[in-house]
Amino acid sequence: MLIISEEDVLKNYSMKQCIEDVERAFALSKRSEIVIPFRTLMHQGEDGAHTLYMPSFVPEINYSAVKIASIFPGNEEYNIPRIQSTIVLSESKTGQHVANIAASALTMLRTGAISGVATKHMAREDARTLSVIGCGVQSFGQILAIMEVRDIDKIYLYNRTKNKAFDLKEKVTKQYPNWNGEILIVDSANDAVSKADIIVSSTSANTPVFSGEYVNAGTHINAIGSCEPTKQEYDVETLKKANKVIVDTLEGAKGEAGGLVIPNEKGEWSIENIYSELADIVVGEKVGRENKEEITLLDSVGVGFLDTVCAASIYESF
Amino acid sequence: MLIISEEDVLKNYSMKQCIEDVERAFALSKRSEIVIPFRTLMHQGEDGAHTLYMPSFVPEINYSAVKIASIFPGNEEYNIPRIQSTIVLSESKTGQHVANIAASALTMLRTGAISGVATKHMAREDARTLSVIGCGVQSFGQILAIMEVRDIDKIYLYNRTKNKAFDLKEKVTKQYPNWNGEILIVDSANDAVSKADIIVSSTSANTPVFSGEYVNAGTHINAIGSCEPTKQEYDVETLKKANKVIVDTLEGAKGEAGGLVIPNEKGEWSIENIYSELADIVVGEKVGRENKEEITLLDSVGVGFLDTVCAASIYESF
Repeated sequence: MLIISEEDVLKNYSMKQCIEDVERAFALSKRSEIVIPFRTLMHQGEDGAHTLYMPSFVPEINYSAVKIASIFPGNEEYNIPRIQSTIVLSESKTGQHVANIAASALTMLRTGAISGVATKHMAREDARTLSVIGCGVQSFGQILAIMEVRDIDKIYLYNRTKNKAFDLKEKVTKQYPNWNGEILIVDSANDAVSKADIIVSSTSANTPVFSGEYVNAGTHINAIGSCEPTKQEYDVETLKKANKVIVDTLEGAKGEAGGLVIPNEKGEWSIENIYSELADIVVGEKVGRENKEEITLLDSVGVGFLDTVCAASIYESF
Repeated sequence: MLIISEEDVLKNYSMKQCIEDVERAFALSKRSEIVIPFRTLMHQGEDGAHTLYMPSFVPEINYSAVKIASIFPGNEEYNIPRIQSTIVLSESKTGQHVANIAASALTMLRTGAISGVATKHMAREDARTLSVIGCGVQSFGQILAIMEVRDIDKIYLYNRTKNKAFDLKEKVTKQYPNWNGEILIVDSANDAVSKADIIVSSTSANTPVFSGEYVNAGTHINAIGSCEPTKQEYDVETLKKANKVIVDTLEGAKGEAGGLVIPNEKGEWSIENIYSELADIVVGEKVGRENKEEITLLDSVGVGFLDTVCAASIYESF
């Protein structure tokens, strides 16, 4: 049993590699069976503390894994991260458990990589400005991923609590010492949106944080914040303006993507309008962007088998 | 994250401690809530390979854990154990994952300890002979446990493949260099049964391996082999002769104890005849053995929260 810490993951596993792995994982999900049992939720406290057990098995790479994610809202009080996650990786020829991988950095990287893959296929080739709404942990991974697939020269950051935007700016600046681009912190989400070729929306908002009114033609949007059917971080106007709405998996989107589920339930927009799963675009079954004017939107809630593929890649790098 | 290997468990965790922990665990299951979500089964191959994810949360001790058990029938070909199991232990104030514990030795010890606790309360104080039907890995743990709670001076071993009985004899002999008792290998399960004050039945048999006809008055039986509702290792006569039938949990027994479920379904015996759960006897809500003549039977299929309690105890010993 190999123990791989958060530091090990960050040191050994690049965003470039992670994007390759995620793209490969989506491709193999199209051509072979992947086993994803229902996840188990175990309640652990009156404050909503709970643990999720999310197993998946990818026969083609001969690994299975279970991600164990404990969400403890009370942790903020102790200055301990709210989400504690770890992955047990098992090889699937003999069922031997080969690694225990701390999974916060992995999750941040693979969540970024999903947007990276979508952006690679859906954003304009000449996209140069990136606007990030919400400056939490995940947004750093989003920026790493998008910097990998497009030549970004300007990043706009918006966060309700401005300090977090400054913190993220500092982190990104440190990450790219030789980069000539500029990072600007703005006061309104709509302002950020109006300046963007690529938008990342990564908030835990219950109601829309920006309006479709401000989305320009030719924009690609990665919405990754809302992973609950009752949360909606972009409005229905954004959805209606989008020429192509894609999702990581239809099943996940229908169960968890509030941005799509809520307008569908209200009859404002139909979930049947989803253009495709990201995997279809990766393998070329569906075309990505077709012209400079299209507005494209990825609503991503994540999908467990990516963790298995990324965990296996990390393990094999040791 | 602390990694605890099989060797660490065997070195640091005694059967004496394990019996104490299991007894304490049963007691606290009576006085406080324990959370046991449904276990998840993930199929992993045409030969029946599969992985079980078994989480449980014991609020009173502030730990949760998930046992991951991969059962790979094809492993025998590679001389790798058929069952690969590991436990991730998490403390439940902040959800932090604190240890990964190899779980074969732990499972063997705690399965033994269940029988140890039952034997302590149910076997005659003057029980001296132990007969073990089936000499696989679990039987070693059964012997360790029963040696802990009774002064055994004779052990009869029966196994269909005799070599395994000799292997177990050697292992037990090594374990107790100063013991004055005797270990005898016998040719028939019924012969072993007829000589016993305490019986351990630990086989993977689909149909009964011994007959109740040979069970003497005053015997205590620990039947731990059949953990599937379609397997029956002791016959209905044994069941009918038993004055007290106890189980680790009613829920587990009704779902998995073939020895009880099959006769119940056939109308040969009623599951309503179960005398009590082991926990009731541990806390004194029900009386154990009442005289020298009673035949008592524990049918144990195991219960997940014991793993959590034992894992926590092992972790805290480091």
